[in-house]
This record gives sequence, C-alpha cells and structure tokens, in this order.
Amino acid sequence: MIRVNENYLKLQSSYLFSEISKRITAFRESHPEREIIKLGIGDVTCALPAACVAAFHAAATEMGDERTFRGYGPEQGYEFLREKIAVHDYKERGAEIEAGEIFISDGAKCDVGNIQELFAEDVIVAVPDPVYPVYVDTNVMAGRSGDWQDASYRGLVYLKSTEHNNYVPELPETKVDLIYLCFPNNPTGATISREKLREWVTYAQKNNALIIYDAAYEAFIKDETLPRSIFEIQGAKEVAVEIRSFSKTAGFTGTRCAYTVVPEACNVYTRSGTAVPLHTLWLRRQTTKFNGVSYPVQRAAEAVFSAEGKKQVKDLIDYYMHNAGLIRKRFSEMGFLCTGGDNSPYIWIQAKMASWDFFNLLLEKAGVVCTPGSGFGKCGEGYVRISAFNSHENVEKALHKISDVFR
Amino acid sequence: MIRVNENYLKLQSSYLFSEISKRITAFRESHPEREIIKLGIGDVTCALPAACVAAFHAAATEMGDERTFRGYGPEQGYEFLREKIAVHDYKERGAEIEAGEIFISDGAKCDVGNIQELFAEDVIVAVPDPVYPVYVDTNVMAGRSGDWQDASYRGLVYLKSTEHNNYVPELPETKVDLIYLCFPNNPTGATISREKLREWVTYAQKNNALIIYDAAYEAFIKDETLPRSIFEIQGAKEVAVEIRSFSKTAGFTGTRCAYTVVPEACNVYTRSGTAVPLHTLWLRRQTTKFNGVSYPVQRAAEAVFSAEGKKQVKDLIDYYMHNAGLIRKRFSEMGFLCTGGDNSPYIWIQAKMASWDFFNLLLEKAGVVCTPGSGFGKCGEGYVRISAFNSHENVEKALHKISDVFR
Repeated sequence: MIRVNENYLKLQSSYLFSEISKRITAFRESHPEREIIKLGIGDVTCALPAACVAAFHAAATEMGDERTFRGYGPEQGYEFLREKIAVHDYKERGAEIEAGEIFISDGAKCDVGNIQELFAEDVIVAVPDPVYPVYVDTNVMAGRSGDWQDASYRGLVYLKSTEHNNYVPELPETKVDLIYLCFPNNPTGATISREKLREWVTYAQKNNALIIYDAAYEAFIKDETLPRSIFEIQGAKEVAVEIRSFSKTAGFTGTRCAYTVVPEACNVYTRSGTAVPLHTLWLRRQTTKFNGVSYPVQRAAEAVFSAEGKKQVKDLIDYYMHNAGLIRKRFSEMGFLCTGGDNSPYIWIQAKMASWDFFNLLLEKAGVVCTPGSGFGKCGEGYVRISAFNSHENVEKALHKISDVFR
Repeated sequence: MIRVNENYLKLQSSYLFSEISKRITAFRESHPEREIIKLGIGDVTCALPAACVAAFHAAATEMGDERTFRGYGPEQGYEFLREKIAVHDYKERGAEIEAGEIFISDGAKCDVGNIQELFAEDVIVAVPDPVYPVYVDTNVMAGRSGDWQDASYRGLVYLKSTEHNNYVPELPETKVDLIYLCFPNNPTGATISREKLREWVTYAQKNNALIIYDAAYEAFIKDETLPRSIFEIQGAKEVAVEIRSFSKTAGFTGTRCAYTVVPEACNVYTRSGTAVPLHTLWLRRQTTKFNGVSYPVQRAAEAVFSAEGKKQVKDLIDYYMHNAGLIRKRFSEMGFLCTGGDNSPYIWIQAKMASWDFFNLLLEKAGVVCTPGSGFGKCGEGYVRISAFNSHENVEKALHKISDVFR
C-alpha cells in the first residue's frame, strides 16, 4: 500500500498567503464594485528594469538560432552570473565569496525549502517567531516539528522577536543545531547589527550549529553600518549558508531567479563526528533534483549588475522605500507603534486588536489588504505587516482610506 | 551539532552525466585538436521553435511595462497553459484530465525528484533496470534504498528490462508500493503496449500501489497504437501520476518547463488505512517549496500549442527521428543488436564489451560521446545509449567515424 508521509498531516491549515487570497476572492465576489489595494503579499508591482528586459530579449533571440542556442546549462548556474554575484554582492563589500560557492536557483523559497533535506531528521531546529512560514512548514514535512499543541510545534525552538528585544531574538537557552535567521526581517522589517549577528555566529561556532541566513531583503538596507550579508562577519563561512533573491531587489517575483551561497569551508557532521562539506552535499542535491534556471532568465539577472542595471535597480528600491517611509509615518501619526520601513520594505504595526480582526477591518472598511501578523506565529498576534510594494498612487490612496477608518 | 542526512552518504560515486562530462573534459585537454561529437547526454541541439521565441519576446516586453507586468504567478502554473495542456495533450487523445490536475514546473527532473517526499519513508520502491538515475538517487537520499551491495541497493526492487522481455519489465513477484515506469524508455528507447500498461495499472489497483509514469519522450511516438499517456488506460487516474516535459518535445532543455498530472481521484493512505488525496498533498508541497515557473517561459510553452507551434514542433521531432532511424540502421548494419530509435530518440546498443570500454573506445577512436549503459544499472552493463539529439551533419559524421572504428 502506498502510504503517505504522515508528517504532512501535521501541517496546520492552509498556507497563510493562500488563506489571504481566499478572503480577497470572497470579498471581491460579495463587493464587486469595491476597489481593492493590496499591501499584503510582498509582491512587487513596478516593471522589470529595462536593462533586464533587453537582456531577456537578446537571450530569447539566441535561443531561436541554432548557432547560439543553449540546451542544459550547469545545474549550479552559469559562470557569467555566478562571477558577477561574487564580485558585486560580496567582494566589493569585503566578503570573500567565490563564484564556485554560489548556486543559482529559481527562487529563495525553493532553496530555503529544500536545504533542510541535507540534515538529519532529528536535528533541533530554531526558527524566529514571528516567522516566514516556509522555515516551519518544510521542517514539519520532514518530521522535525513534533506535534502541534497550543499554537506551536512541540519540537521546534521558537526565537521570540518582540518589541522588548527590538525584534532581534536572544540566543537560545537550550542547544539548537539549525538556526533560521532573516534580516532585514520578514515580516517585522527589523534589521540586525553587526555585533548582534556576530553573537549568533559565535554561538554557531561554539555549538557546531548551522545558520540559514535569509537575506532576501538586503537591497533595502540604507544604513551603511548594518551588515548586508552574514559573510561580512568573520568566521561565518564555517557556520552559515546565505540565501538571496532577485525577486524583491530587481522585481523578479514573476521572472524567478535567486541564489544560495554555500561556502566550501562549511561542514556538517555524521553521528560519529566526521565532517562532511555541505557544499558537496548541496551540489549533489541540486545536480540530482534540479536542472538549472532558464538561460534567458539568468541573462536578465546578469543585467542587474550592468551600469544601467544598477542604476535602474537603485531607482526601484528608492521608489518602494518612498512608500515604506510614508506608510510608517502615517501609521505613526495615527498612533500605531511601527517597526521597519527604514531599511526594509515591510512595516510591522501593532494593531491594538487581533491580527485577523485588523485584516478584516482594513479589507472591509478601506478595501486594503494587509498580512495578519498571527499568520507568522504566536508573537505576531496583535500585529499586521504592511508592504511597500505598490505604486505611489495606490499607497497614497490606501493610506487616505485607512486614515478615514481610524479618524 | 548539525548532523548530516546520512542517507546522502549511501549515494554511489557521482551522477552519471557529471562523470561523462569529466571524461570529456579530460579528453579535450589531452587532445585539444580533436573534434568531439556528443551523442551522449540527451540534450537537444536545434533552435527553440520560432513560435516559442516570439511568445518569449512578447512576454518579456510585457514584463517591462508596469501596466502588463506580472509578479508572483500561481505556484501550480497559469491557467492559460494548464488549459491548453488539458485539451491538446489529454482530451484530444481521449484522456479526461482537467486543467486543475496539471501542475506546471521548471523540470521533469525536479518533479520526479521531489514527489517521493509525499510518501512514507518505508514504502517499497520498484525501479526499472536500466533506470534513469534520478528515480534511484532521490529515494536513496530519502532513506528508502537500504545499503549498497553487489552493485545495487538492497532495499529497492529492480524491474529487469532486458532483450528477453523486450525491455518491458514483468510485474514484480514481491509486493511493491511505489513504481517508476518510463515509456518511451530512457535509456532503452523501448515502448510499452496498451495491454502491458494495463497490466501495470491493474497491479497498482490490486495492491494499492502508485505508478510514477515518466512520459518525457511521448512526443516521439509515431506508432498510433501505442499509448502516449498512462491516462489512456481506464482506471489509471486512481493509481498514477504522469510527468511530462517540454524539454525534448520542443527544445526546452535550456528554457525549462515541464508538468506533472496528479489526478484528483488518486489517493495515498495513512498507516491506519485512511485515504488522503495526493492532489492536495502535491499542491501543499508546491505552494510551500516552489514559486511557479517564469512567466515568459510559460508563455513560450503555451506557444507550443498554437497552429505554427504544433507545426514547428512536429518538424523538430521529425528532424531528430531522421537521425534516430539512421543511427539504428547503421549500427544494425555494423552487426550490433539495437532497440529504440523508432518511437524514441534513444537507441540502445548491445556493445559486445563492457559499457565504459565501449564509451572510451568511441571517444578515443571516433571522438564520439555515447552514454555507458552500466551507468543506468546492472542490466545496462554491456550496452550503450546513443542519442539522436544532434544535427544531421554531426550524426552523419559521427556514424562515418564509428564505422571506421568497426570496419
């Protein structure tokens, strides 16, 4: 009999963003005349940078000519892209990452979801709370969560991120093996200082733990004193993997390109204590279960590093950060406590009521979609996440409607 | 301590195609003057069909305009593509598959590699021998293989495919739960009749087993009496999943698009025997760990179903099948026993020596790359796979050089 992986049955309800979609659809059906402005799911709205579109076109043309056609590319990604990432995203900022340590993929969600396969089923996993649900759900599927009880999984260690610690969790009191960190944070928008990040690296070194560092939002960091990569911290190459994406940086949510850095110095261990290079394992995983990213997409991503590409990406970031500043300002003026929005596209707002109540209120009274904080974990209850990814016009309109609700 | 998934340590040497690449690189370095013709890895060489390139361009242009820009698409793929697949690839051939049962992905390798996650760790897995290595390796990684001993994994059931059964395996003598079948077969090029496929469906029904049907090469079937889809067999929707790809059909190996059909009627079971719809599980897996295929790529794939697209794809298939016919004819004339090449792009040749010896002989004497059959399993020893994916000119040249070796 073909039996199911029963860990899947421990998953709680549906994925947060699917639930939001359902509620929007229901609202739209019952109020067909009402305009809806989405500041919920963190999806970009501005066009792909012109440099990327041009590269996309040129590469599609190459595919249409057998002299320049490309079939299977390297599963790890083309050198032309890996090398540019190594130089522009790392070496220029003092982090010694080589092209060979970079793996191109079709999404940060895929990498963050797949990498846990490389670890033993009984490693102790620590996740932030509030948390990007993928960190949790993929470990539930793999059997690392234990049972669901009192709105949390018994086998996971939740790293509380609250206003009391500025949304940067303290080191865990019990020993953990696999640690998910995300800065600038999704959903809170909080950032981590070099000193705090160093504490985590030191913890990982002392405990032979591994940090999965999700830096999908690093491009939004304006404060030059903040680290953009965990590899700016000495020793991190031995204990960390970093995941980044072109999705939010350059508007690739529908185009699909991301990358994961697995340093060659990073080891995991057998039960008897033998070190195994994580790089070799990930390469094996990717060559076995993945076939690389579409060639034209990789060319489009490469264009992000051209002179015009850099300029266009900067303009994109500035555009959204103008929204972020405005959202934070207006909500603050309305008397809400806010985090984020300064070095991140997310603003985390204390709702003064249950998260889904605030979500429903905003949807029904203002036609604005936000993301209920409780969907990100216990510590998210009473908060909502507002995203800066929309047009200036829509953000202005949404804020206007929201201020009518709370006037 | 961050411990490794020790199942990875059971994997045997490197992935077959990586090993071939290494040998080619070594040969190239020691013989820089020699021309190499690759008839090894099944990678296409002709340009992407013009209809696909045009759709690719148009969609990239849409991405560059904020009025037509698209961010995150549905993880399961866009309706426009799923609906065309349902109509053209299934309903037109009498298989009642709905758009909602089709999941678009970036590769058949990804889907075939990922779907085993949905099953219990101790289900009994049956794989063909010779076998596409991904079926085996992904189950090794998941802990279903047992140890490696005498050139096979103790915990897998190998379905022998030899000249004695025309490369269509007999039903297993012991009970199995998860069955991988691939027709037209990679690597043997063999096809399965409707009657034989019905026997497998009946076996699965009787034993509550599940068939993963890999139909990546269905477009090469010329014989109208052969099934192109397992869903042409009555009752298959309850016991089978089918995986297909645009890679070989329309030259998408570097463009990346494939799909998996998970019928709503297909169930898997808990230990206590409760049925769980596989469709729901795969949807949850994909929405959690995948973010959909690049929008322009989905538009390029959609163009395969347009009138010009269909014509261009037919021309592509005919082009390669001309090669296939020629390879089979010439090798037969040289006195080799051949299978495939009539309804598939692969020709499976009895080498009359060890597979890697024949590989080395062909590389060193003729500068031609084939794929050693032993890389596909015990039953592949003594065979090689020759692929029809190359230009007419290169195939003619390769056959000429090969005939010089065996004259």
